[in-house]
Amino acid sequence: MRIVVVGGVAAGMSAASRAKRFDPGAEVVVFERGEYISYGACGLPYVLGGAVDDWDDLVARTPEQMRGRGIGVRLRHEVTGLDAQARTVTVSGPSGVCTEPYDRLLIATGVSAIRPDWARTDAAGVHVLREIPDGQAIARSLEGARRVCIVGTGYIGLELAENLCRQGLSVVMLERGDEVGGNIVDVEYRRRIRAELEAHGVDVRCGVTVEGLTVREGRVSGVQTDTGLVRADTVIVAVGVRPNVELLKAAGARLGKTGAAAVNVRQETSVPGIYAAGDNCETVHRVTRRKVHIPLGLTANRMGRVAGVNMAGGDATFPGVVGTGIFKVFGLGVARTGLGQADAERLGLDAVSVDVESTDHASYYAGAAPIHVRLTGERGSGRLLGGQLICSNPQSVKRVDVLAAHLHGRGKVEDLFQMDLAYAPPFSGVWDVLLVAADRLQRALR
Amino acid sequence: MRIVVVGGVAAGMSAASRAKRFDPGAEVVVFERGEYISYGACGLPYVLGGAVDDWDDLVARTPEQMRGRGIGVRLRHEVTGLDAQARTVTVSGPSGVCTEPYDRLLIATGVSAIRPDWARTDAAGVHVLREIPDGQAIARSLEGARRVCIVGTGYIGLELAENLCRQGLSVVMLERGDEVGGNIVDVEYRRRIRAELEAHGVDVRCGVTVEGLTVREGRVSGVQTDTGLVRADTVIVAVGVRPNVELLKAAGARLGKTGAAAVNVRQETSVPGIYAAGDNCETVHRVTRRKVHIPLGLTANRMGRVAGVNMAGGDATFPGVVGTGIFKVFGLGVARTGLGQADAERLGLDAVSVDVESTDHASYYAGAAPIHVRLTGERGSGRLLGGQLICSNPQSVKRVDVLAAHLHGRGKVEDLFQMDLAYAPPFSGVWDVLLVAADRLQRALR
Repeated sequence: MRIVVVGGVAAGMSAASRAKRFDPGAEVVVFERGEYISYGACGLPYVLGGAVDDWDDLVARTPEQMRGRGIGVRLRHEVTGLDAQARTVTVSGPSGVCTEPYDRLLIATGVSAIRPDWARTDAAGVHVLREIPDGQAIARSLEGARRVCIVGTGYIGLELAENLCRQGLSVVMLERGDEVGGNIVDVEYRRRIRAELEAHGVDVRCGVTVEGLTVREGRVSGVQTDTGLVRADTVIVAVGVRPNVELLKAAGARLGKTGAAAVNVRQETSVPGIYAAGDNCETVHRVTRRKVHIPLGLTANRMGRVAGVNMAGGDATFPGVVGTGIFKVFGLGVARTGLGQADAERLGLDAVSVDVESTDHASYYAGAAPIHVRLTGERGSGRLLGGQLICSNPQSVKRVDVLAAHLHGRGKVEDLFQMDLAYAPPFSGVWDVLLVAADRLQRALR
Repeated sequence: MRIVVVGGVAAGMSAASRAKRFDPGAEVVVFERGEYISYGACGLPYVLGGAVDDWDDLVARTPEQMRGRGIGVRLRHEVTGLDAQARTVTVSGPSGVCTEPYDRLLIATGVSAIRPDWARTDAAGVHVLREIPDGQAIARSLEGARRVCIVGTGYIGLELAENLCRQGLSVVMLERGDEVGGNIVDVEYRRRIRAELEAHGVDVRCGVTVEGLTVREGRVSGVQTDTGLVRADTVIVAVGVRPNVELLKAAGARLGKTGAAAVNVRQETSVPGIYAAGDNCETVHRVTRRKVHIPLGLTANRMGRVAGVNMAGGDATFPGVVGTGIFKVFGLGVARTGLGQADAERLGLDAVSVDVESTDHASYYAGAAPIHVRLTGERGSGRLLGGQLICSNPQSVKRVDVLAAHLHGRGKVEDLFQMDLAYAPPFSGVWDVLLVAADRLQRALR
């Protein structure tokens, strides 16, 4: 049994480890086109900001450690072709091109940062942030830089804004839409995020379309927009990602409507023997039962694990997601799970949302910090559809997991209200803010 | 409709408010034997320690505010008798004794701190902590005090130890059992709690039985134990509580095996027209389906709410509890929900526990703090039975709520592992520690 894995980051390395553990007799080989495997890409902005000391700290397992477990790892090897009939892949590496056979193939090629046409340039100082070398290039670019323009205000853009400000840089953010944060949370909450950015000196400009770059002496000097020129010596393009599906297409594997790989719960593609896992895959949203493409770290690791077990002859299934997302922006923790009001309306659901503003712990106890909770439920069914939190004590935002847990089982709002959540004055009000919100929502749903 | 409420703290005032809101035409009268209503008793230790500024801060609603809502509040009125046939209570107040009629009666008399025989003394400096005047008396007693002996190491004792240390007092704790913390968490975790106490200078002595007090010039001067004399100028007795069920007995209402009031899910006692709610009641543990007496703030408030709605003609039910508890002791947050290994074994369940030590967020991100999680599951059913957390970043301990949510629905360990919990480096590892523990437990249960 020869298991070949294409891509050695989250899903790929999880799969390789699991496959080898499940069937120690299997030969497991990982081809990674880059120089790093098994790293926490979500930590990239924090190396730039200093909360993570070094790029190497992001690496969970080195190639040597993987080889010590009997897993072959070939860095700087890109899989460029695939013959699903012959069960071979074409691999291009430092010492040439070769053909490698497989019994089971995992395509864990992730996503690439989108580079609009205007961002395709030879000028220095224009970056995306997706992989460790991207981060290293940004770090080099920032030496002597003064003014950074971040184009896009999704997770990466928002996290970058905080981390670059912490380095003393002047940061301007450009957003095409009316408000920062895309569809991460509802617009009322996105306004709070913008206020937090602005309170920390970020120059946020919404409703701005980028048209091009200006270059001086080989380095970017500004961003041309429909509302004028924005001067910057460094530009980071964070306008989204696109699944890397070229190999899947070459294999004749089906893609979903989202553009990402269509896989079943076992992470099998439509082509026998070929699996896909990670950011390049779509999955089922447990709240809507629709296919979604939400490339995030836990999902990728879990998909890889499932694929690894199945490739090695086991039987594991991926349970889907509930759309949980979380991030930090300066002094705020922001999280969402399930559907927001806008998400629900787009899907035509009869949704109601309530907003509660409270404190993370008993208001009479020192240090109580504001916490905003929005819960969304469905009329008729009484189901919880989702929740959004913004917490001035960032750590409190993990309370979103209670909602994620309840959504996982398609729970009702009235059951959320009945839960025996923990109370002591340093940690909560008697009625935890989630219970307060659930109470208000259950009444709004009646 | 005349609704009479005996006891004006958590359950009583919740019931009164709910009843009046549900039926604005009802006459609602609250008799409170003390001088305060509607206060957060759980905050008492923190006034002594300074995290809460003043006793009055604990008061959520004043009598005037309640009267403004049309609710009669009579302070310093103790209900001393009850005629269930005539539907009257005997009330003793500052201006004498009178008989008051009721249509619906709520007995929300709470619990009293247990005072062993040796603690019944006229000597100054010997206290319990249950109500605001107890706290005020301790505060007065501590003026000029140097060495405090806390007898008992349950929630109150542990919280007091931290708060009195913060005031610069020398604190010694005496515990009859082998380890601090009674059955709050399993013994391995209780050892960690003791280590935290000792690291902050608390003199913890376990396996010690108190036999008496020594008194000098009218004030306590020491605690006599089976292992010698412990000198102290202030003694706080925190050995547990006992439900106040005298009125229920007088009414002929049934008590449960726990010694607390037996009520149905509507908070009705066995006597028509008489309800009970709050710390004096037992309830159903949703994990074991047994009756338990776990007097805690949220439970009391929720029971009061249910009783209030029902007394006013509505139909509400109390869902039971899953045994969630949480507290802070110096730099640790400690929480439990459901059953620990010891709890499960006492009940004869075929339980397995796993322990995971991790960090509250990505280890490579600055400030990652240790977090210990113990999960307990049931062989055969695969059900989650409970979880315990000790967190060096105290705020992280609210993650116990994810487990409480899952226990509420009698969820399985394998479903816990499948949950889409939030991940970003400042908040979690890719695999949240609860997922890591669930994975380990699901394998241990196979």
